Amino acid sequence: MSNDFSCSLPNTNLSAVSLGHGSGGKLSSNLIAESFLSSLGNSILNDLEDASIVNNNLAVSTDSFVVKPIFFPGGDIGSLSIHGTINDLAMRGAKAQYIACGFILEEGFLIADLNKIINSIKEACQQNDIKLIAADTKVVNKGTGDKIFITVCGFGQVQHKIIPSVKQAKEGDVVIVSGDIARHGMAIMALREEFELESTITSDTAALYPLVNELLSHNVKINTLRDITRGGLATVLNEIAKASDVSIEINEAKVLVNSNVQALCEMLGIDPLYVACEGRFIAIVDQSDSKLCLSLMHKHELGTDARVIGRVFASKEPQVIAKTHIGGTRLLDTLIYDQLPRIC
Amino acid sequence: MSNDFSCSLPNTNLSAVSLGHGSGGKLSSNLIAESFLSSLGNSILNDLEDASIVNNNLAVSTDSFVVKPIFFPGGDIGSLSIHGTINDLAMRGAKAQYIACGFILEEGFLIADLNKIINSIKEACQQNDIKLIAADTKVVNKGTGDKIFITVCGFGQVQHKIIPSVKQAKEGDVVIVSGDIARHGMAIMALREEFELESTITSDTAALYPLVNELLSHNVKINTLRDITRGGLATVLNEIAKASDVSIEINEAKVLVNSNVQALCEMLGIDPLYVACEGRFIAIVDQSDSKLCLSLMHKHELGTDARVIGRVFASKEPQVIAKTHIGGTRLLDTLIYDQLPRIC
Repeated sequence: MSNDFSCSLPNTNLSAVSLGHGSGGKLSSNLIAESFLSSLGNSILNDLEDASIVNNNLAVSTDSFVVKPIFFPGGDIGSLSIHGTINDLAMRGAKAQYIACGFILEEGFLIADLNKIINSIKEACQQNDIKLIAADTKVVNKGTGDKIFITVCGFGQVQHKIIPSVKQAKEGDVVIVSGDIARHGMAIMALREEFELESTITSDTAALYPLVNELLSHNVKINTLRDITRGGLATVLNEIAKASDVSIEINEAKVLVNSNVQALCEMLGIDPLYVACEGRFIAIVDQSDSKLCLSLMHKHELGTDARVIGRVFASKEPQVIAKTHIGGTRLLDTLIYDQLPRIC
Repeated sequence: MSNDFSCSLPNTNLSAVSLGHGSGGKLSSNLIAESFLSSLGNSILNDLEDASIVNNNLAVSTDSFVVKPIFFPGGDIGSLSIHGTINDLAMRGAKAQYIACGFILEEGFLIADLNKIINSIKEACQQNDIKLIAADTKVVNKGTGDKIFITVCGFGQVQHKIIPSVKQAKEGDVVIVSGDIARHGMAIMALREEFELESTITSDTAALYPLVNELLSHNVKINTLRDITRGGLATVLNEIAKASDVSIEINEAKVLVNSNVQALCEMLGIDPLYVACEGRFIAIVDQSDSKLCLSLMHKHELGTDARVIGRVFASKEPQVIAKTHIGGTRLLDTLIYDQLPRIC
């Protein structure tokens, strides 16, 4: 497939899986809709929430982690996998209590590296009071895997009365981002390409439940929460707009991007609005509570740089629009596929 | 690593992961004990049950499936992954109600094949009244995966008062196997080697909960249940003996092996007692209930060939002994590693 980011509709007759199918962009959505949901869909799965809620308010989420390289500034595939799981549950106001992990190891993978990753998992679990209650290990022949893949399923009880949902954003709501964006994706990218950067870009990977818990404990009227992962801020805003049937306008000048991240993005011709974080979320908050939300976030280490970046409005077709730095507007569509594969 | 099945202790200082580490044999146990449990262990995980039971009798299990080839007589990686999950929960008397699936796809994998597998998952879920409530799809570059890997986490409520456990086998108990053994492993092996066999060997892959439910609904005193997967009957008996601190004696002549399976095993020099099934279990039953158990099993399609193969006895060191066909006895030790990698 060509490296074409045009907005023409993807060819859904592609007969083979491409990297774009795992990117979080339109190809991913098509594969999920046409292959997975058409066969396996049901009223719970079809909602495409970060975590599903089943009987007795049990929230459940699963993610496979295939990040390359497996070690990066700020974390590794082990901590990333635990943080990602915590965050998916947190986006529904649930605290991860238990996890199950499936490890797929490639023949030849160094046991010392495995032990480092296991240690990261241990620390992330301890810091967040999570118990591993089920695990499995498989080994595949050399050249049919890539060191280590980790699939985590996490679950825990919803802890609050307010249960944010991707479907609940409504006209007039305020869009808040919890910090600077695009750091995780560019931290990975910098390693792969071995650029001579003046300083290291560190991943933002973090467990977001403590901040979410702080906000929901104060009954902040958060309608929607979503962590910014594959596809970045722009893609996640599109997911929310579509699921809630609203439009969203953001002001690009309000979106915080670290200067090293911005420089690398410019060097590579990558739009930071489409680059993944692993420790940031979008909160869509009732206008009446936006000040309360921001002030609580600013007091918390995970939200010191939180800011309002836009608002939700009603329109015929759900869309995401950005006011640009030079005063114009541009449509932030979902990309056909992500610019950066295998960042998580 | 050499292809050495001797019973000397494995070199636990191996610095890299080998296929044997995923086989279910001693190398696997060592990796689990030394790398995983030493860091991540806790009172639940350390029990190494087929499924863990947490608050409110919720049983949870996870397994990654990397079987090669992905299609085989009797099933495919999709149905196998659902059956495997159902079976792990069933071994604690729990019915799988919900599953979460992580799919790792290799770039270039045919979407038509993906759709076949998804359809198998759908059918297996429908037949067993299971809902997929969370899923994730990742794509890895060509040559860093192998078509498709599936990690399933399943959970559901324990349904009965009797909760079998790998730790509950006791002196005097009777050992029952639910059918013929070694069919799944040899079905996979036959495909890989493309032998000119007179007839096809069909995998025994099946969802075992209906039979377990029948037995536990009649309050059959089942102390231990374990499905016979990696490492086969002999390995699973060793796991039970060790966890329950008992010894087990079986009569080899009582163990049913299909004639085609037996022939292929002989051709390859493989001991069927160490070959995986995917639709058979071992039930360790109170002597007083063994007749009831057998008669219920014989009436059920999943247990028509069930038979008593041995008994549990007390000894200083847990061990598994077989009375051989020629009247002698042999020690059935755990292999260093499995004879057949990637059968599930």
